[in-house]
Amino acid sequence: MAFEEKLLAIAAQNQSWLCIGLDVDLDRIPAHLVEAHGIEAIADFNKEIVEGTKDLVCAYKPNSAFYESLGPKGLELLKKTREIIPTDIPMILDVKRGDIGNTASKYAQAAFEIYGADAVTLSPYMGWDSIEPFFEYQEKGLFVLCRTSNPGASDFQDFNQLYLEVAQRIATWRVQQQSGRIGAVAGATYSAELRQVRDILGEEAFILVPGIGSQSGNLEEAVRAGANADGKRAIINAARSVIYASSDKDFAEAARAEAQKLRSAINSAVQII
Amino acid sequence: MAFEEKLLAIAAQNQSWLCIGLDVDLDRIPAHLVEAHGIEAIADFNKEIVEGTKDLVCAYKPNSAFYESLGPKGLELLKKTREIIPTDIPMILDVKRGDIGNTASKYAQAAFEIYGADAVTLSPYMGWDSIEPFFEYQEKGLFVLCRTSNPGASDFQDFNQLYLEVAQRIATWRVQQQSGRIGAVAGATYSAELRQVRDILGEEAFILVPGIGSQSGNLEEAVRAGANADGKRAIINAARSVIYASSDKDFAEAARAEAQKLRSAINSAVQII
Repeated sequence: MAFEEKLLAIAAQNQSWLCIGLDVDLDRIPAHLVEAHGIEAIADFNKEIVEGTKDLVCAYKPNSAFYESLGPKGLELLKKTREIIPTDIPMILDVKRGDIGNTASKYAQAAFEIYGADAVTLSPYMGWDSIEPFFEYQEKGLFVLCRTSNPGASDFQDFNQLYLEVAQRIATWRVQQQSGRIGAVAGATYSAELRQVRDILGEEAFILVPGIGSQSGNLEEAVRAGANADGKRAIINAARSVIYASSDKDFAEAARAEAQKLRSAINSAVQII
Repeated sequence: MAFEEKLLAIAAQNQSWLCIGLDVDLDRIPAHLVEAHGIEAIADFNKEIVEGTKDLVCAYKPNSAFYESLGPKGLELLKKTREIIPTDIPMILDVKRGDIGNTASKYAQAAFEIYGADAVTLSPYMGWDSIEPFFEYQEKGLFVLCRTSNPGASDFQDFNQLYLEVAQRIATWRVQQQSGRIGAVAGATYSAELRQVRDILGEEAFILVPGIGSQSGNLEEAVRAGANADGKRAIINAARSVIYASSDKDFAEAARAEAQKLRSAINSAVQII
């Protein structure tokens, strides 16, 4: 099923725009899992987190870096993670790639064909021909970095308001390609800028919003700034604050409790419930 | 040995600023290798290419995408490739990563600890805190994308001359960090812009210059624009035009002949020989 349909269906079913970031770090997952299974503990951990939260989310977002840092074996665990995530829940693979055309097509092959991602994050720096090879996969979603959630975001993204230029270009690509599959990443830590990005992209676009939780963006403000007029289509990502809610044997229940709290807070902010 | 020392020593020894891009595509390497060894043919291919050219280069640059597109096994082949490259020749791992701090440190771990890269390419879009975790590895070199070689480079890099802002910021980081390890990527296809980047970064900086060969940048112009006053420190990368010089059993000799031609042309352009 195409990314958009899958996302809208599960968001409606689970009444949720919460995305959980599966940024799994061997140093932070419960010690009993690592002691029992070594590196394979990552699969056990993801399985329990997904089992505990799958009725509360609209997507999962593993960041590729955490798997890559473990070498080829880590990437086997990323493949396993896709198998763990139910097929009706989209997996957004956070890769932030950007390279020349023939190389970008190899990155697209990895993300979509090897790891079964439904959508990816991409860096805009190298322009449209670095994004197009991903767009050629017709069922997949793209989220182009616009205004990111980190402190250094201002270094270049604020240079003559580059992030607004990127947002405008994304809006143009959406029209030119007659496609709703191209969305943006705009961080919760800068809610005024997030609102600007929403205004430029319009009501239909999906915006991926990282930066709540450990990065301490204000959830309510971010949801109101990022969502469209119907209170939808802002995918609110939380990673560490959910998956590491407890470092003990109750980690899956703790993650579930945190996810419930976040889903409620998101829905209250836009008055879905 | 630190990247800079290693690079300067081998460039002097081999009288060469040529870098060969090991962007290995199973569809393009000689059929007899693939028939004999399947995916492992990539290691055979790289071994013969490196054997045939190691006295003609200052570095090798595998682009991670080509290995990633083959899944975890492809990344095993990237590890093997590091073992194939003599330890006195730097491996620049072309990854173009850029992510928030805690994630960037995972990417740095992968590039430097798992794959043994001496240097990496990085995207500037997310600012200094996305670059710093790579900089923390004190012996490693960084090449930050400035003006890339692809057609879409103009989409954002020309926005109010963003690429000059990036170059200026790299120059500032070099001063602030009191370090020569931070260089730039500027493509051979835009030699006027490459010259500007050299002027901003000064005589000591290393500039990685892709885009000759298959991307049809003018070699002589690019070398003159990118090199410093001594005719040095512009690392001229060629990939497809060298490694696919022949698709037959003589591929390693053909690659050697092409590398010799390029080294001579680079040296003539700056009158080293």
